[in-house]
Amino acid sequence: MTETILAAKKAQGVSWAALSEAVGMSEMYIASCVYGENSMLPQYATKLCKALSLSPEVGATLAEYPMKGQSLRQTIPTDPLIYRFYEIMQVYGVAAKDVVQEKFGDGIMSAIDFKIDVSKEVDPKGDRVVITMNGKFLPYKAW
Amino acid sequence: MTETILAAKKAQGVSWAALSEAVGMSEMYIASCVYGENSMLPQYATKLCKALSLSPEVGATLAEYPMKGQSLRQTIPTDPLIYRFYEIMQVYGVAAKDVVQEKFGDGIMSAIDFKIDVSKEVDPKGDRVVITMNGKFLPYKAW
Amino acid sequence: MTETILAAKKAQGVSWAALSEAVGMSEMYIASCVYGENSMLPQYATKLCKALSLSPEVGATLAEYPMKGQSLRQTIPTDPLIYRFYEIMQVYGVAAKDVVQEKFGDGIMSAIDFKIDVSKEVDPKGDRVVITMNGKFLPYKAW
Amino acid sequence: MTETILAAKKAQGVSWAALSEAVGMSEMYIASCVYGENSMLPQYATKLCKALSLSPEVGATLAEYPMKGQSLRQTIPTDPLIYRFYEIMQVYGVAAKDVVQEKFGDGIMSAIDFKIDVSKEVDPKGDRVVITMNGKFLPYKAW
Amino acid sequence: MTETILAAKKAQGVSWAALSEAVGMSEMYIASCVYGENSMLPQYATKLCKALSLSPEVGATLAEYPMKGQSLRQTIPTDPLIYRFYEIMQVYGVAAKDVVQEKFGDGIMSAIDFKIDVSKEVDPKGDRVVITMNGKFLPYKAW
Amino acid sequence: MTETILAAKKAQGVSWAALSEAVGMSEMYIASCVYGENSMLPQYATKLCKALSLSPEVGATLAEYPMKGQSLRQTIPTDPLIYRFYEIMQVYGVAAKDVVQEKFGDGIMSAIDFKIDVSKEVDPKGDRVVITMNGKFLPYKAW
Amino acid sequence: MTETILAAKKAQGVSWAALSEAVGMSEMYIASCVYGENSMLPQYATKLCKALSLSPEVGATLAEYPMKGQSLRQTIPTDPLIYRFYEIMQVYGVAAKDVVQEKFGDGIMSAIDFKIDVSKEVDPKGDRVVITMNGKFLPYKAW
Amino acid sequence: MTETILAAKKAQGVSWAALSEAVGMSEMYIASCVYGENSMLPQYATKLCKALSLSPEVGATLAEYPMKGQSLRQTIPTDPLIYRFYEIMQVYGVAAKDVVQEKFGDGIMSAIDFKIDVSKEVDPKGDRVVITMNGKFLPYKAW
Amino acid sequence: MTETILAAKKAQGVSWAALSEAVGMSEMYIASCVYGENSMLPQYATKLCKALSLSPEVGATLAEYPMKGQSLRQTIPTDPLIYRFYEIMQVYGVAAKDVVQEKFGDGIMSAIDFKIDVSKEVDPKGDRVVITMNGKFLPYKAW
Amino acid sequence: MTETILAAKKAQGVSWAALSEAVGMSEMYIASCVYGENSMLPQYATKLCKALSLSPEVGATLAEYPMKGQSLRQTIPTDPLIYRFYEIMQVYGVAAKDVVQEKFGDGIMSAIDFKIDVSKEVDPKGDRVVITMNGKFLPYKAW
Repeated sequence: MTETILAAKKAQGVSWAALSEAVGMSEMYIASCVYGENSMLPQYATKLCKALSLSPEVGATLAEYPMKGQSLRQTIPTDPLIYRFYEIMQVYGVAAKDVVQEKFGDGIMSAIDFKIDVSKEVDPKGDRVVITMNGKFLPYKAW
Repeated sequence: MTETILAAKKAQGVSWAALSEAVGMSEMYIASCVYGENSMLPQYATKLCKALSLSPEVGATLAEYPMKGQSLRQTIPTDPLIYRFYEIMQVYGVAAKDVVQEKFGDGIMSAIDFKIDVSKEVDPKGDRVVITMNGKFLPYKAW
Repeated sequence: MTETILAAKKAQGVSWAALSEAVGMSEMYIASCVYGENSMLPQYATKLCKALSLSPEVGATLAEYPMKGQSLRQTIPTDPLIYRFYEIMQVYGVAAKDVVQEKFGDGIMSAIDFKIDVSKEVDPKGDRVVITMNGKFLPYKAW
Repeated sequence: MTETILAAKKAQGVSWAALSEAVGMSEMYIASCVYGENSMLPQYATKLCKALSLSPEVGATLAEYPMKGQSLRQTIPTDPLIYRFYEIMQVYGVAAKDVVQEKFGDGIMSAIDFKIDVSKEVDPKGDRVVITMNGKFLPYKAW
Repeated sequence: MTETILAAKKAQGVSWAALSEAVGMSEMYIASCVYGENSMLPQYATKLCKALSLSPEVGATLAEYPMKGQSLRQTIPTDPLIYRFYEIMQVYGVAAKDVVQEKFGDGIMSAIDFKIDVSKEVDPKGDRVVITMNGKFLPYKAW
Repeated sequence: MTETILAAKKAQGVSWAALSEAVGMSEMYIASCVYGENSMLPQYATKLCKALSLSPEVGATLAEYPMKGQSLRQTIPTDPLIYRFYEIMQVYGVAAKDVVQEKFGDGIMSAIDFKIDVSKEVDPKGDRVVITMNGKFLPYKAW
Repeated sequence: MTETILAAKKAQGVSWAALSEAVGMSEMYIASCVYGENSMLPQYATKLCKALSLSPEVGATLAEYPMKGQSLRQTIPTDPLIYRFYEIMQVYGVAAKDVVQEKFGDGIMSAIDFKIDVSKEVDPKGDRVVITMNGKFLPYKAW
Repeated sequence: MTETILAAKKAQGVSWAALSEAVGMSEMYIASCVYGENSMLPQYATKLCKALSLSPEVGATLAEYPMKGQSLRQTIPTDPLIYRFYEIMQVYGVAAKDVVQEKFGDGIMSAIDFKIDVSKEVDPKGDRVVITMNGKFLPYKAW
Repeated sequence: MTETILAAKKAQGVSWAALSEAVGMSEMYIASCVYGENSMLPQYATKLCKALSLSPEVGATLAEYPMKGQSLRQTIPTDPLIYRFYEIMQVYGVAAKDVVQEKFGDGIMSAIDFKIDVSKEVDPKGDRVVITMNGKFLPYKAW
Repeated sequence: MTETILAAKKAQGVSWAALSEAVGMSEMYIASCVYGENSMLPQYATKLCKALSLSPEVGATLAEYPMKGQSLRQTIPTDPLIYRFYEIMQVYGVAAKDVVQEKFGDGIMSAIDFKIDVSKEVDPKGDRVVITMNGKFLPYKAW
């Protein structure tokens, strides 16, 4: 499925931004579905298939619940762009835990009730990538 | 150094936000220095030491260039809050690479010319953790 | 802290069940705090210290937010009792994912908004260990 | 075999609960057989094949003794739902060992003379996943 | 504890065989307790301490339920004698699974309801080590 | 080769014990050859092929010297039956080293001049698996 | 793509140096593109294809942004030539960090805004390989 | 030794460049000795100790042949500056092998008969780190 | 290539010793080329192909510079014969480093300017395998 | 023990060769005992202690049977001299297996009934390290 959609997307020169408009979902969510990491409700999958003139079978696969974490296939990624996320976790992870828990109490940021977006900040000294993660705080509760 | 500062911070009930005001740097940057992952210019280190009534030796250590990535000490973190960053990389890393490179071209988001902030979004259905990463786009150049 | 409490508990012959009564929390939650994997509100920590005649410093440590996942210190545990949880995950993990997601939709069982209990089922052919996990279902939501 | 059965189950819209009724075994046990982690007596395999209109060869494979632990294929799972079992073992494994052994003596919960079930607890604040493990206590005996 | 007992055993020139007689348990079981891998009922621990003129504290530690699998501290052992067990598992493990399951059905040899003994077979071409493992067969049962 | 022989063995309902009689070698040795972990002299391979009506090519492959340790394909096995051998090594390996070396001196049990057998001990409380390893003691010699 | 280009290059006896002239880029950059580790602007890809009489599809693949770090496929390389880079990092990495940071301040050498070249230094005692890395210094900036 | 020298170097504000002049060896070689990765002839060690007013014992340790590769202590380094060398090996290693072997024949760049230097290239768009490796080509010879 | 040559060698019953005579190189060097770990000059490859009646394409592949270390495909080998080399390194590696460096100074035995041979020493108590490694000593030189 | 002996050996300027003469064992065997990888009969240990004026306690430790493979402490060694043994195993291991087994039949070279020696071959083009391994061939025997 991933290859079929990416091939169609490339052949037709359609961007993630254009797919976002056509489907009514964010770029990152659609991309994560295409890479087999999230599922889409059938009505969205249908729109995506229509936008790229793909068969309904592709849409059916997009609606299935995937086994997640299979797209990367590496414990520590070697691709420099993806590795930087690993580096950020190594360098800033402990600090982030402390700052989050000071602001919210004992608990975590959900990676399920969660969204992530990528945008471009134009800057004369060199454009900047801005990644925003937004996840529900889940407090530990004693029992 | 890390333990000395954290102990003083806790004993005096000073928050990262208060240190941010006192020092004139962001919470996350200060915390990353305290956990031995970044260095501070001496003038900032001095302010931090003053705010927590710590000796100048502590400040000198804060100004050294650290061996980074030593605070976590795990290839795959077991702490649930920190692990979620690993999970996000596994689930969204490939999608993020594609979306970033479609918007910017072949290159990466710098983790050096980079800042990261943590804030709280109040929400009646449960407050949300918002993490914003902002890194310079570095294009690959042929030679 | 862990060693202090375990030594006091053993010296005084106090069971987890008795601590549960004294503190007003479940056995497993208290044990997880003692092993440095959860935090207790100060009022509970005080009760625990009183029950075992421990100093307030111990209680203060019990109330801190710990770096979790440090008690086991092994990627794959070698202790047979703990290893069996790993084995269960290897043997039944994929089936559990499928059954959970068929019943609930795409999402996960929270390990944060979560409780776990251990009880004994008396059986003439050999008593049985019953472990009950109860976690909130967290659905993936598109954005 | 796994793919054949899952494809038939999906095409015919049959749930694990319906298969449980048709075969006379629990949902989780059937699912674990379908994923190649347990074997079924031929009479049960026959019922499963009849329920899904599958050939007897599929049933013969269901009755073989499988090489277990092959369905997950990861030392530490990346799928968030399955990873949470790993996290629970990291966070609660040592506490569970202590509580089990205090209640039962030196020994373990069997993962062979064992059953596991998944059920839904309806809750207005969000439904909950309830997983119950029930394994025979096996005491260590000196010799 | 391990070092104390081994030092006393060596200083007094007592063999495992002599300890076996004095305590009334097998050599291997006693050795496994001394290395912190099994627990002994207090009456046996007392005999062991008497045989080696050790303090009762040592006996109390022998009676505790240990965290097992800590004596080796290597995923793949480097000591040639111990590595050979790993090699036997690599070379004969799959064959042993097949032969055991053909003789007994789907299930395993318990490593809990289990004993292991080491003896010497005198042979003019070179003495032989004979290791006998005896574990209860545990059948998988459907539910 | 492995699959061909196992398929023939299953189709004809021949047990390892029957093959042992037909070939004149032990069950475990034959099984280890079939799984590609040992080689058979041509005269034995011929008998095996005759017993299962297999072509001489299969026999020729059985007589080759295999690259060993390829049948398991896992550093730590996930199959519960095979894992128990790993667990036994973790729990009893250090004790076995000590007992063997006390009885024999500094050296090891050979895994090459070695045999391993599996038998069933009938027991009203549950049959027992008995595994006997018999390896030549190889002493370290100084030079 | 990699195999197609390497086969054509070998069949036609074209060196990296000749390709460098034909394409107008350095040997190492072209080689890194051919091994799927960098992308080429279409005009360069076209020249490369013309020089080797390859179809435009190959050129289109050369212009795609690759998933990097896939050509080596080993955490620690076993090929002696490539391993030496790993050894150099192990032996000289910490020293290089100290010398770089003393000369430049806290920061790193970019591996993105970066070039690497290989040349031969003729020497009567044995020719020498000279590898020159040239990367922009990226300073850490506080925020 | 490492800590003693680094502390003296820092307290006295001596740079690697100044040590290079005082000792008559390159900065990188001296730094590698200080970090315990190379040995120095006694006459050089004496000069280094004199330059930093250190005792002769330090010099004696500098002249010992060290167990190399102990300064980094990580299979994949987490420090960003050092990690970039790992990334360069992942991204450019296969290309470098091909280019080196095309220029020199089948063989490797020695990491023993080898030198490495770090210098600064001033650049108005941002200074650049230049690392030069120079190792003897060692050809494979048949026998 | 490897399989083609090994199949021809086996079908024609040609030994490594016979190939050594026919080609004019040592057994071990030829075998290492056949397993894809070394390259042969074309004139030798031609002789090898003639000796085994193989096509010139096979010879061309033998003359290519291989990616080395691919024939074993295991970090720690499971085959007992090959594992013993790993064991020897674990048991004797540190001693060998000390003895070599005492005899030669700081440096290493080259594995490139290197030969290795295998011979048989007939012995009435059991024949012995003699492996001789001969590598140029490469001294570290300061710069 | 290791450090005591090495310190005495260094302080007194005694070489392994001199110890070999004094003790009547080979250099490599003595060195392996000193590094805790082999045991010495008490009469030899006494000679070693006399030669270095060490106390009898050191000799007693030399006579104990050690847990082997502890001196290196790395799965893949980072020291270049020791790593080369690993590289030789990766590059020549499969070839050595084939050549050994063609000469001897199915079996292995013992690493227990084994000796290893290091000598220097003077060569005007650079001295050479010669390492000779001599191990009994152990044939696999069927049963």
